[in-house]
Amino acid sequence: MKILKHVKIWPNMMVNELVEEMKNSGFQARKLADSVRILTDMIHDKKCTKFLGLAGAIVPGGMRRVIVEIIRNHFIDVIVTTGANLTHDLIEAFGEHHYHKESVVNDVQLYKSKINRIYNILLPNKGYVILEQNLQSIFPKLPQEELSSREFLSELGKHISDRNSIVKAAADENMPIFCPAISDSILGFQIWMHSQSHKLTVNTTLDQKDILDIAFDSKRSGALIIGGGVPKHYIAMAMQTTPKALNYVVQITMDRPESGGVSGASLEEAKSWKKVAVNAKTVDLICDATIALPIIISSLLSRKESI
Amino acid sequence: MKILKHVKIWPNMMVNELVEEMKNSGFQARKLADSVRILTDMIHDKKCTKFLGLAGAIVPGGMRRVIVEIIRNHFIDVIVTTGANLTHDLIEAFGEHHYHKESVVNDVQLYKSKINRIYNILLPNKGYVILEQNLQSIFPKLPQEELSSREFLSELGKHISDRNSIVKAAADENMPIFCPAISDSILGFQIWMHSQSHKLTVNTTLDQKDILDIAFDSKRSGALIIGGGVPKHYIAMAMQTTPKALNYVVQITMDRPESGGVSGASLEEAKSWKKVAVNAKTVDLICDATIALPIIISSLLSRKESI
Amino acid sequence: MKILKHVKIWPNMMVNELVEEMKNSGFQARKLADSVRILTDMIHDKKCTKFLGLAGAIVPGGMRRVIVEIIRNHFIDVIVTTGANLTHDLIEAFGEHHYHKESVVNDVQLYKSKINRIYNILLPNKGYVILEQNLQSIFPKLPQEELSSREFLSELGKHISDRNSIVKAAADENMPIFCPAISDSILGFQIWMHSQSHKLTVNTTLDQKDILDIAFDSKRSGALIIGGGVPKHYIAMAMQTTPKALNYVVQITMDRPESGGVSGASLEEAKSWKKVAVNAKTVDLICDATIALPIIISSLLSRKESI
Amino acid sequence: MKILKHVKIWPNMMVNELVEEMKNSGFQARKLADSVRILTDMIHDKKCTKFLGLAGAIVPGGMRRVIVEIIRNHFIDVIVTTGANLTHDLIEAFGEHHYHKESVVNDVQLYKSKINRIYNILLPNKGYVILEQNLQSIFPKLPQEELSSREFLSELGKHISDRNSIVKAAADENMPIFCPAISDSILGFQIWMHSQSHKLTVNTTLDQKDILDIAFDSKRSGALIIGGGVPKHYIAMAMQTTPKALNYVVQITMDRPESGGVSGASLEEAKSWKKVAVNAKTVDLICDATIALPIIISSLLSRKESI
Repeated sequence: MKILKHVKIWPNMMVNELVEEMKNSGFQARKLADSVRILTDMIHDKKCTKFLGLAGAIVPGGMRRVIVEIIRNHFIDVIVTTGANLTHDLIEAFGEHHYHKESVVNDVQLYKSKINRIYNILLPNKGYVILEQNLQSIFPKLPQEELSSREFLSELGKHISDRNSIVKAAADENMPIFCPAISDSILGFQIWMHSQSHKLTVNTTLDQKDILDIAFDSKRSGALIIGGGVPKHYIAMAMQTTPKALNYVVQITMDRPESGGVSGASLEEAKSWKKVAVNAKTVDLICDATIALPIIISSLLSRKESI
Repeated sequence: MKILKHVKIWPNMMVNELVEEMKNSGFQARKLADSVRILTDMIHDKKCTKFLGLAGAIVPGGMRRVIVEIIRNHFIDVIVTTGANLTHDLIEAFGEHHYHKESVVNDVQLYKSKINRIYNILLPNKGYVILEQNLQSIFPKLPQEELSSREFLSELGKHISDRNSIVKAAADENMPIFCPAISDSILGFQIWMHSQSHKLTVNTTLDQKDILDIAFDSKRSGALIIGGGVPKHYIAMAMQTTPKALNYVVQITMDRPESGGVSGASLEEAKSWKKVAVNAKTVDLICDATIALPIIISSLLSRKESI
Repeated sequence: MKILKHVKIWPNMMVNELVEEMKNSGFQARKLADSVRILTDMIHDKKCTKFLGLAGAIVPGGMRRVIVEIIRNHFIDVIVTTGANLTHDLIEAFGEHHYHKESVVNDVQLYKSKINRIYNILLPNKGYVILEQNLQSIFPKLPQEELSSREFLSELGKHISDRNSIVKAAADENMPIFCPAISDSILGFQIWMHSQSHKLTVNTTLDQKDILDIAFDSKRSGALIIGGGVPKHYIAMAMQTTPKALNYVVQITMDRPESGGVSGASLEEAKSWKKVAVNAKTVDLICDATIALPIIISSLLSRKESI
Repeated sequence: MKILKHVKIWPNMMVNELVEEMKNSGFQARKLADSVRILTDMIHDKKCTKFLGLAGAIVPGGMRRVIVEIIRNHFIDVIVTTGANLTHDLIEAFGEHHYHKESVVNDVQLYKSKINRIYNILLPNKGYVILEQNLQSIFPKLPQEELSSREFLSELGKHISDRNSIVKAAADENMPIFCPAISDSILGFQIWMHSQSHKLTVNTTLDQKDILDIAFDSKRSGALIIGGGVPKHYIAMAMQTTPKALNYVVQITMDRPESGGVSGASLEEAKSWKKVAVNAKTVDLICDATIALPIIISSLLSRKESI
């Protein structure tokens, strides 16, 4: 049995040193260190196709630049995300911000002030006006045909100038973004509005061949899954419907398994489905991603030379 | 201030009597009773368009007949659901079952036995074989054209014979089902496979006008939201993008708000977005739906004459 | 493999019928039915010493009469509880009530109105004044010596007249109540105040022999554990420090294992400690006790003849 | 409104820099940064009496040295903890370790190997044998009289030589430790065993005057509360029963308010009780303490000069 060593801390210690200390500790701290170790192995594995599943309000939570670091460092190869994360990324790319909620304001007052709340973060309705103005001026410049979500997002990224944008970073790096439920987002709503008088439309059925080809062609595969939902299921289903299975998986979520939903389902359970390989390296980290993700990615950046 | 009365229980008490007792108690029991009260008001309101948002593994959890009761009693008018729930409903409609997990089995053994686990429930891979056989024989009988998810599911329902099927019940009752992320399901995968050599395809962009028209045309609106995810967001977005807002909302989930995701977001927060009306009757019930839902719906059935 | 049967519901169904339906379903509903089955077996087992662990705000939650039913029906033999539950039980026994929170009130307003909040329940400070008046007039009538918490509560119960009181019901039924952390409660504070000028004091060290004798003398043992905390640990420790182990355990809590604390620890983990027997019948039910407990106990009442 | 700034990360960044970045982000990351800010203010406030509430398995989780740093740096003045944390601290002080669980082992096997599990951490039964041997040889050296838990732990600490021990560090620094539920721990069990033939006993009623005097004499007060339970309640009750209220509170837990228990209760709710001052600086951080605590304390160490 390996001895538990208590976490040592000191002034001005580095994030990566803290992760090293956590490696020999317990509970979720140990899992956080395991996450870094497994992702390091995944990135080292040159024959591994690496997915990022991105659900939850990761942009309003302040994680936009962390995601962009993941992309620009090619820690992953393929993104699957919700329409909401893209919508919020684009709102910032077009110049609006998210804001901090002061504790005294209630939701009825916010409604009257035309400000939307996301837990302790705010977004003025104006953000959606700016989004509409910008998208409706960009859309005519895109190919006027039926596109998959992947094709659409790749084309859209070419027209974004904000270097801190997830959509732009992915386009710059030639990294596919899949958005299987794009209809269920204001971005999808804007596409639909434009499509009433133009030929550009998005059809997510067209993504199916692409995602399956990527899974099928992978020698090995891995995933960093943040927050469950459609992105988690879509990556897992690509494994389920091809003869493949994930070899490395780090799942970061506050959802739990006891209601049976896929978001909180354990990675152990995913082995029965062959979504995750029987001998895969996995960790289920129970932590809000806004805390765990910057630690993990900053630690990966510190190890990058070795990667 | 209204006095808390302690729950009384007795032998052979009825579920509806228990709900009555809980009405004056505290914590989640009181919220359970509030859920019944608000849904009763919603059903009484003849000018209210009533949505059911259905995420999570509600069919594997054993809630299929409860959902069918909701449909056949017209407690709701419109369904928004995940592809997974439809997939599992169809697998049962085509003759396979879900099974109970015995505690001694582990996931690697299940994988080797070609059995998939969903928490304490099992589904043999054979279920997917039966699903494929049946769907691929039904699909040629459907209109060979591009359909919205709503149109597709309505057509599909006509070819299901199992009266306990959600898809059939909705078709029988002429009740629309929207499935905005159908691509992200084995049902969607089967559609895509068939579409490789046939003209039938599903395009969820085509649903947008329908869901918005329903929202726009509603005088008042309400929702029973089980489990968050795309269904919750899709209903909410129909309110956000029309001049409407939900007047009655019951949300049943184990997800919590602290990670900022929409699944666990409070209904109070939704007021800032105008997804929920400022003066709406709402309750956030924190409970696994497999416990709460049968109690609530059985209680509604007992009150039906009064409804 | 045993087939999952979907829960059937009907108008005016009985709680016990609902539990029967849940028996063949999944997720927490199945666990709720398992709880009833295991407790039925425990109560049938005439050689089993049965513990009730009671933590959390079960009295403010409206469960006082349900607990009294458990006691008066002798579904258990020994109670271990927090001082807070006794404090709130006594406040009601002395004539004050708990009240419902209206959603518009905030905590600063409540503070100014001298009203304390417990989630969606309120308790005026006046309750503590009434508690003090009554206790300080009863205490002089109790034996003026050092008592164990068990002895103290047994003596106190003789001076309570409210038949719906937990303390009185236990005294009536000659059922021991242990309160290992009585110092950490307003009841304990009142004892201390009185002890400044009187000989009556409570020393929980004196309980140790009693709880260990009960564990030691048990042929078999079982526990209904609500809410973790000291009561759960105290029952478990009696097993750990004697050659015994629990043979039946039902644990009802919303706490989870991932922080390593005893409240959310799984019963499986407790097997490694010999707190729970290797072949014990156990269920971890993840549900707020205000919902689960009335269902379970009402179902047990319906089965009582068979018990 | 203050603009949300996205967290920036870089190679070899320091923990304190990460906290600075999180300050302007959202969800729990922002709350983590708020925790550091409030604790810094609390430590700066020279007229503030500072409590540490320590529940949950913080020693098995690998946080022993972090707690010792808190003590030796006098970030707090008074400790309230569970008997379990002291028990595990002493087991390590006497030479046994905690160990890491390998994923393949199950609880029945662990039981047979006489190894106890705490989530992903193990403790051999041998640890309890060593504890008993050492305590029973130390106890005769302590004052043979009835002691409060505070007095007992202060005396015990003088006989511990391990500088990484919480009990020793507190004794060295002349810092009181209260353990109101010491009966509910193996440490308490060992005291009781010894007391069968010796005069040394511990009576927690004797702590009441001390904790109330500390509260009463405080000009201002603050608390770092980890994990709820008796320690949280005991600190809060000292405020409730004196004319004081906490002015700074940081609560770190994974427990939630919806079951009404004190562990998960919000600090806002505590204002209604006057446990927390109406204008107090507070944050409820939802995170496993093994992740949050080393970040927070390491960040405080980095700021120490300014403190």
